[in-house]
Amino acid sequence: MTQLLRVQCFGVSSDGFGSGEGQSFEHPFGHANPVDLLGWAFPTASWVNRTEPGGSRGLDDYFTRDMPRGIGAEIMGRNKFSPLRGPWENEDWRGWWGENPPFHTPVFVLTHHERPSFSLSDTTFHFLNAPPAEALRQAKEAANGLDVRLGGGATTIREFLDADLVDTLHVTVAPVELGRGERLWHSSDELLDRFHRDVVPSPSGFTHLLFWRR
Amino acid sequence: MTQLLRVQCFGVSSDGFGSGEGQSFEHPFGHANPVDLLGWAFPTASWVNRTEPGGSRGLDDYFTRDMPRGIGAEIMGRNKFSPLRGPWENEDWRGWWGENPPFHTPVFVLTHHERPSFSLSDTTFHFLNAPPAEALRQAKEAANGLDVRLGGGATTIREFLDADLVDTLHVTVAPVELGRGERLWHSSDELLDRFHRDVVPSPSGFTHLLFWRR
Repeated sequence: MTQLLRVQCFGVSSDGFGSGEGQSFEHPFGHANPVDLLGWAFPTASWVNRTEPGGSRGLDDYFTRDMPRGIGAEIMGRNKFSPLRGPWENEDWRGWWGENPPFHTPVFVLTHHERPSFSLSDTTFHFLNAPPAEALRQAKEAANGLDVRLGGGATTIREFLDADLVDTLHVTVAPVELGRGERLWHSSDELLDRFHRDVVPSPSGFTHLLFWRR
Repeated sequence: MTQLLRVQCFGVSSDGFGSGEGQSFEHPFGHANPVDLLGWAFPTASWVNRTEPGGSRGLDDYFTRDMPRGIGAEIMGRNKFSPLRGPWENEDWRGWWGENPPFHTPVFVLTHHERPSFSLSDTTFHFLNAPPAEALRQAKEAANGLDVRLGGGATTIREFLDADLVDTLHVTVAPVELGRGERLWHSSDELLDRFHRDVVPSPSGFTHLLFWRR
């Protein structure tokens, strides 16, 4: 089986931003409201952070349900891992996700400032100063034959797209504009020279875009 | 975790038939052409009977991909298993699927004419003369905590719906009329008193209907 590099459940605004400006500890998405960008996912039965039983099992749930399927490792950018910039002053910051992060696999954090690996429950974070192809090589090795998820943010996804390393993308377009922030694209048409695209409007008001290689 | 009873990738015509009239060894769907009913699934990367690499990874593939996820047993009607009717003359018939059936779990075949269980590769077929609730009890026990798939045909699905045992349904509506055959419904509106419904048109020309309990 081929090991794929998959973007899953990545949310952008209608004007193409994956997060707003001014990320901080209190505002992981900057001036963007996470509910505006990802609100389609939270009511679904399979949303990773769901703590209560129940939830919807319609179209949107197919996408939250598919997010962990066959994934053996994740790659993410430094800014998805942390609101801090530059060299680490200490190693106190261990991600946004508490003692049981929703990854359950090795996670490779791309950063110019490496630090020792650590584990929280069944997730191990590695820190890697490497170009996309080398990061993917290491993540595939760690994934043990399974696929690798490219977790974002937008800048990280763009870097892997520029290196032509991405096999499939599931991006949700929110019915809001952000005006500024971290941009994934001006238009998803930019990907059509290399990818097929299905456009799937959801009853939740979001639109699911599905891309796979031509 | 709750064990669900799930209908997945069950195809009907626009007038509500899951198969045509006159099933035979040569025509498992009677006068209906399987491609007309299920043609959306065959080009997808995850279709169970795919033998070549490649295939689409858009919307339709989410549904073929989801079909085996978390399934520990299947229940099917006698007519999905075999074109033969009445008492078994012998035990030569072992299903349509060859030496490696695409189930990979225990399969419970509902029939008034029981016969000994047998295995083909990692699929074991059991034959059960039991009402829906009892069949589901046995299938859940065999599924070892996983969900149970209700494989059809239409009559079998209707019996489990009448007994209010079905938790989710994924039914695809084909852009063809059959006029006669084995009917699932006159209109999918019949389910709306008990189920939510998402209506999802696919670029393939089929419409995915997704139901989950209210």
